[in-house]
Amino acid sequence: MALHPSVAAVRTAVRRGLADLPPGATVLVACSGGPDSVALLSATVAEARRAGGAGMRVVGATVDHGLQEGSAEQAARTVALMASLGVDETVSSRVVVEHRGTGPEDAARRARYAVLEQMAAHFGASAVLLGHTRDDQAETVLLGLARGSGARSLAGMRASFEVFRRPLLGVARDDTVTACQVEGLEVWDDPHNADPGYARVRVRTRVLPVLEEQIGPGVAAALARTAEQLRADADLLDDLADAAYARLLGPDGGIAAEALAAEPTALRRRVLRRLALEAGSPASELFHEHVVALDSLVLGWRGQKWIDLPGHRRGVRTDGVVRVIAASGEPGEPAAD
Amino acid sequence: MALHPSVAAVRTAVRRGLADLPPGATVLVACSGGPDSVALLSATVAEARRAGGAGMRVVGATVDHGLQEGSAEQAARTVALMASLGVDETVSSRVVVEHRGTGPEDAARRARYAVLEQMAAHFGASAVLLGHTRDDQAETVLLGLARGSGARSLAGMRASFEVFRRPLLGVARDDTVTACQVEGLEVWDDPHNADPGYARVRVRTRVLPVLEEQIGPGVAAALARTAEQLRADADLLDDLADAAYARLLGPDGGIAAEALAAEPTALRRRVLRRLALEAGSPASELFHEHVVALDSLVLGWRGQKWIDLPGHRRGVRTDGVVRVIAASGEPGEPAAD
Repeated sequence: MALHPSVAAVRTAVRRGLADLPPGATVLVACSGGPDSVALLSATVAEARRAGGAGMRVVGATVDHGLQEGSAEQAARTVALMASLGVDETVSSRVVVEHRGTGPEDAARRARYAVLEQMAAHFGASAVLLGHTRDDQAETVLLGLARGSGARSLAGMRASFEVFRRPLLGVARDDTVTACQVEGLEVWDDPHNADPGYARVRVRTRVLPVLEEQIGPGVAAALARTAEQLRADADLLDDLADAAYARLLGPDGGIAAEALAAEPTALRRRVLRRLALEAGSPASELFHEHVVALDSLVLGWRGQKWIDLPGHRRGVRTDGVVRVIAASGEPGEPAAD
Repeated sequence: MALHPSVAAVRTAVRRGLADLPPGATVLVACSGGPDSVALLSATVAEARRAGGAGMRVVGATVDHGLQEGSAEQAARTVALMASLGVDETVSSRVVVEHRGTGPEDAARRARYAVLEQMAAHFGASAVLLGHTRDDQAETVLLGLARGSGARSLAGMRASFEVFRRPLLGVARDDTVTACQVEGLEVWDDPHNADPGYARVRVRTRVLPVLEEQIGPGVAAALARTAEQLRADADLLDDLADAAYARLLGPDGGIAAEALAAEPTALRRRVLRRLALEAGSPASELFHEHVVALDSLVLGWRGQKWIDLPGHRRGVRTDGVVRVIAASGEPGEPAAD
């Protein structure tokens, strides 16, 4: 019997995403009970049992953030669903989400990843699978685009990092939903996924449909392709900038303007950004316009006193050397060159 | 009397965009009669006449594409408006737009730029100014995003190329409209600018407003910032890829897979793209997925026969060398390695 195309799409993606694991490896699959992660888990179990397959051991894992009414019951339902799919083990953990300084989504994600890492260590898992799809990737790119902070913010989510892998990053969300329907799996719709208080939900429900309608179908796929290309670009440019930074940095923590001016714009600005970060300017507040202003000390030098940077820092140029220093309470002296 | 902020924004942008021109230089300003180019021309005249300014000679130029009813009358009105602004000369030219293989917008643009270049040569102009604003740039980025073809397609319009300059690329369209109102200039609204048959018009009227509403104000500015950063990135990466291509290309037009495999993804794929282009695969049909498929001959070699490429071309690997060749009518022999 031929597999339904959506089921086949999810399984093929999982097979490719796990092809490098040794036979008998343990894989932990993070499962919220929603269609993406349920389809991922079902496909992982199928691949583990496939004749000629790698004979993986599959652990289904769910994390209860305790952020909404009835979350414990939902976690219990997810455990039952995971068991019914034929996983080797299930694990459920409740985490307390503390958010200091970041948004609640960010805090919940960090707490979830931390507990998944602990679970992976406990079960000796070689990989932790996350159910993010191509549509999640497209949403991430659009959210990054609105920040306007360059290639890195458009590069979306990584296909893998540390022990984590996202095998469905090239699979359409529609395919995960259809795969669950075809296989008769009862999935749960997180009410957060429809809450327009979240920017991501607004992008999913109000922005992407308009883009598809007005620019043409396939925008989500195009955004995901863009992310893949820009990630490769950003990886190389960051490596080159790190090398340039190491080469240019003087013993006193400054960089000679003349040498920096000879670098191409893409590297010069990355080096200047790193100079500001190393001096304590916070990454979350250091924007492109700050780096462009700092760059004016290199390419547009006309005796500027200093450039204000976030975190009470200042860019200055003295004797032809650009530095980022702590701002004093008093106005400084004009920099001399 | 203080200048209105919108008038000041346009003038400052023009002053910066022309700062490097020698005193007495001739500048040709392309003017359609719409708010962007009228504000540009008015600001250029003001800068030319400013005490302590560079004393430029300003030529107002309009191009009649003859594409719509009444275009000759509109060109005449624009000439009268340009003269009323106090330019040194006006010039108007009618072009015949031929479109072979490209869309009508593309053909009209190429015809317009060609005639503007001729006019610049005739008047001995050092620069031809185009009125594209930050909003045009944001629209260009969104249109590129939908193509999903990497940094270059997101890099938007260049601030300058050949004799052309776009001094208003950082200025909001609202400022050009307001500047014309404040100065009492009668501008013309091209009916094409409201025709939803054009993808650009749909992006302007239906996509960007939704993005601003759902993701937050400032999306157009963020898109323009993104374009600036990605352009710098793409310039460097293209230079590096050109150097890698020259270094790796063998005397027989092939590239040794092992050497290419050692290059970072961002360069390897650009080199492969160039290999396909040089072999005659047409740029307009050569997509990211083709390059990724070609890359499988380098990193995922398992004896593939060939990779189909646009323009009846094939990527093959023989004796460890990757080549792009013309596809024959007959199925080829399996490539050996």
